[in-house]
Amino acid sequence: MTGPAGNLFDGLPRDAAEEQFIPLLQAAGFVLERIVSTGQASPPDHWYDQERAEWVALLRGSAGLQFEGEPEPRVLRPGDWVAIPAHARHRVAWTDPDQPTVWLALHHD
Amino acid sequence: MTGPAGNLFDGLPRDAAEEQFIPLLQAAGFVLERIVSTGQASPPDHWYDQERAEWVALLRGSAGLQFEGEPEPRVLRPGDWVAIPAHARHRVAWTDPDQPTVWLALHHD
Repeated sequence: MTGPAGNLFDGLPRDAAEEQFIPLLQAAGFVLERIVSTGQASPPDHWYDQERAEWVALLRGSAGLQFEGEPEPRVLRPGDWVAIPAHARHRVAWTDPDQPTVWLALHHD
Repeated sequence: MTGPAGNLFDGLPRDAAEEQFIPLLQAAGFVLERIVSTGQASPPDHWYDQERAEWVALLRGSAGLQFEGEPEPRVLRPGDWVAIPAHARHRVAWTDPDQPTVWLALHHD
């Protein structure tokens, strides 16, 4: 009578070469996923320009999230969330080099 | 060019009489909200029976989440999430009496 369950901090990769993306839930109009970064950043001068809006929260670790037109990346700490409109160009300037950074991302129409 | 931002742990009530519900994001097909419990529980023999499915994660504090037909509440700790299908009868048996319990709930079609 109940659906799946889990823990957002289980099975965190460490020192992985790539960021890890795990879908948690998919329904009409959205996808919810866990992202784990282990020091990765967007390539220099690479900007995400996404068709869908994204609500993203940082739950563990830290990161610098830069929006085009802002002089400096925003420093994100646990609990910080940002609503990123569709086509708001942004990049991940840095993620914590010393521990996994756990994000919860809701991509939606 | 960017949307709202905040921190999930800002402005937590303490010793509030009622649970606090703050909508974070609403779009076609879902509502995302923060819930803060400060020791509340569902009334005895009260079961939630919701029209929509709910994905819920506990981010801080602790709680007992009971599903009808299960002998004991599930103990939820930070990072634990549960996907609750529509009409899966459940109740909050208890929440942490000593600190705010912060939930992130995604109610969806």
